[in-house]
Amino acid sequence: MRNVTKDNITDVFKSYMAASTDARTREVMNALVQHMHDFAREVNLTHDEWRKGIAFLEGCAAIESEDHHEFVLASDVLGLSSLVDMLHSRPDATSSSVLGPFHVSGAPPLAVGGDMKRHYGGPVLLAQGTIRDTDGNPIPNAELDIWQTAPNGMYASQDDEQDTFSFHGLMTVGEDGRYAFTTVKPVEYTVPSDGPVGDILRACGRHPWRPSHLHYIVKAPGFKTLVTEIFPEDDPYLDQDTVFGVRDDLVMTYVEKPASDFPEGMAISGTVDAPFLSVEFDVTLARA
Amino acid sequence: MRNVTKDNITDVFKSYMAASTDARTREVMNALVQHMHDFAREVNLTHDEWRKGIAFLEGCAAIESEDHHEFVLASDVLGLSSLVDMLHSRPDATSSSVLGPFHVSGAPPLAVGGDMKRHYGGPVLLAQGTIRDTDGNPIPNAELDIWQTAPNGMYASQDDEQDTFSFHGLMTVGEDGRYAFTTVKPVEYTVPSDGPVGDILRACGRHPWRPSHLHYIVKAPGFKTLVTEIFPEDDPYLDQDTVFGVRDDLVMTYVEKPASDFPEGMAISGTVDAPFLSVEFDVTLARA
Repeated sequence: MRNVTKDNITDVFKSYMAASTDARTREVMNALVQHMHDFAREVNLTHDEWRKGIAFLEGCAAIESEDHHEFVLASDVLGLSSLVDMLHSRPDATSSSVLGPFHVSGAPPLAVGGDMKRHYGGPVLLAQGTIRDTDGNPIPNAELDIWQTAPNGMYASQDDEQDTFSFHGLMTVGEDGRYAFTTVKPVEYTVPSDGPVGDILRACGRHPWRPSHLHYIVKAPGFKTLVTEIFPEDDPYLDQDTVFGVRDDLVMTYVEKPASDFPEGMAISGTVDAPFLSVEFDVTLARA
Repeated sequence: MRNVTKDNITDVFKSYMAASTDARTREVMNALVQHMHDFAREVNLTHDEWRKGIAFLEGCAAIESEDHHEFVLASDVLGLSSLVDMLHSRPDATSSSVLGPFHVSGAPPLAVGGDMKRHYGGPVLLAQGTIRDTDGNPIPNAELDIWQTAPNGMYASQDDEQDTFSFHGLMTVGEDGRYAFTTVKPVEYTVPSDGPVGDILRACGRHPWRPSHLHYIVKAPGFKTLVTEIFPEDDPYLDQDTVFGVRDDLVMTYVEKPASDFPEGMAISGTVDAPFLSVEFDVTLARA
């Protein structure tokens, strides 16, 4: 098209695509550019605003590294990551929630009833539950990958004071589908706000806090892998998770129990001589 | 909002914005996220596709540098840069077109009637015209910043063989608003396609070619600065400019003339002893 105009440019873009283009590529690219152009037309995007957008991307590029994923963070705080999760969450299964940037592969094995907190202090939390299929039957030998913040609000990969795998564990549940482990209560924390994403949060008057949570990835042969999080119902940031991760069925009550109620047979480091917290969280996996 | 869903997440995003947020920031961010979420919902964006999007941005980041502006290039080939130009182009003035990444500040002065090609060979082009206001009156002493490719298809900033300012010139037009200079005919060229943007072009079966063009920035006190390009009407890529820069009023006929028609008084390097090309391109500036 020789005479490109603000009204025909979206169609010109679509017309450039070769007939041989993969159908899904065509669908995704056409929708992406339609929305990008509609956005610019709708707000009458100025050159100065366009330059700010480019500067945002270049600013993300400048601090992007293996340890700092600013583009993922942008997707998280704009709600895109959570939306993609929810689009592919199965209504008959436990809700999925954001993976986040702090999962690491190769976590050490954690036995059922094992202790993930090791020598760390803080309020002891006993987390347990059953992994089930959508008919309510336990899934034997499901794999549960668990990670969380240390009491200082940092994940191992952010913190030189921690071992690589501190507060990470990989559990194979029993024949009865049951899992159980002890840890310390996770704490609320802030996403990194020292980069361009932080500038967006500030421009919108938003805080960088996430409510405290345990991360789970639950896998079993024949089932759709579930990436999820468990939140305590008394967290002050539940209604304003800056990455939009909270779902009703992932909000659990952490019940305080006397030390005398601590069950036998848990491989806890040290002794439980004060009230502890207990959460029961069952997970339902959908068939693949 | 505690129970974020795929249907309410866009409203939750909007509700997070503080009441004190600047009104334009609110408008732009809300529209951006509305379109981003609508896009994801409409195509049912998968996790794998989301990861490809993040990998695209990270790939752009990896090659972004002072000499390589991959994010601008992405905006160019998706039509966003041209759309922003057109949104702010004045209908009563010459159309604007893409600035591109090859403009450099501080070009050397070029007198009216001067020679921009210097020692470079190739088809001689005489470009001239009048800078006028929207009533048709010449604008005296307007400033014309000109740049183009060398005959090898490269801009000075891309090419170690060229001086910093080869094929760049800054002209102050006369009292009569007239400009004139000699150069060699610009050539069509490809935008960089060795990065993630090239991958998108290939996935869409698109070529990386731009039709040949002269770049102008025209400034005069009291007038809106015009960034534009002039294309020859016989260029094979006019209908498929990969950055969507062509407008009808920017397509000019390059007329071949005998050497004997070459005007007196041009400060051309060497002699004109073969047919030359001539283009007359008047520029209309809108009042600021």
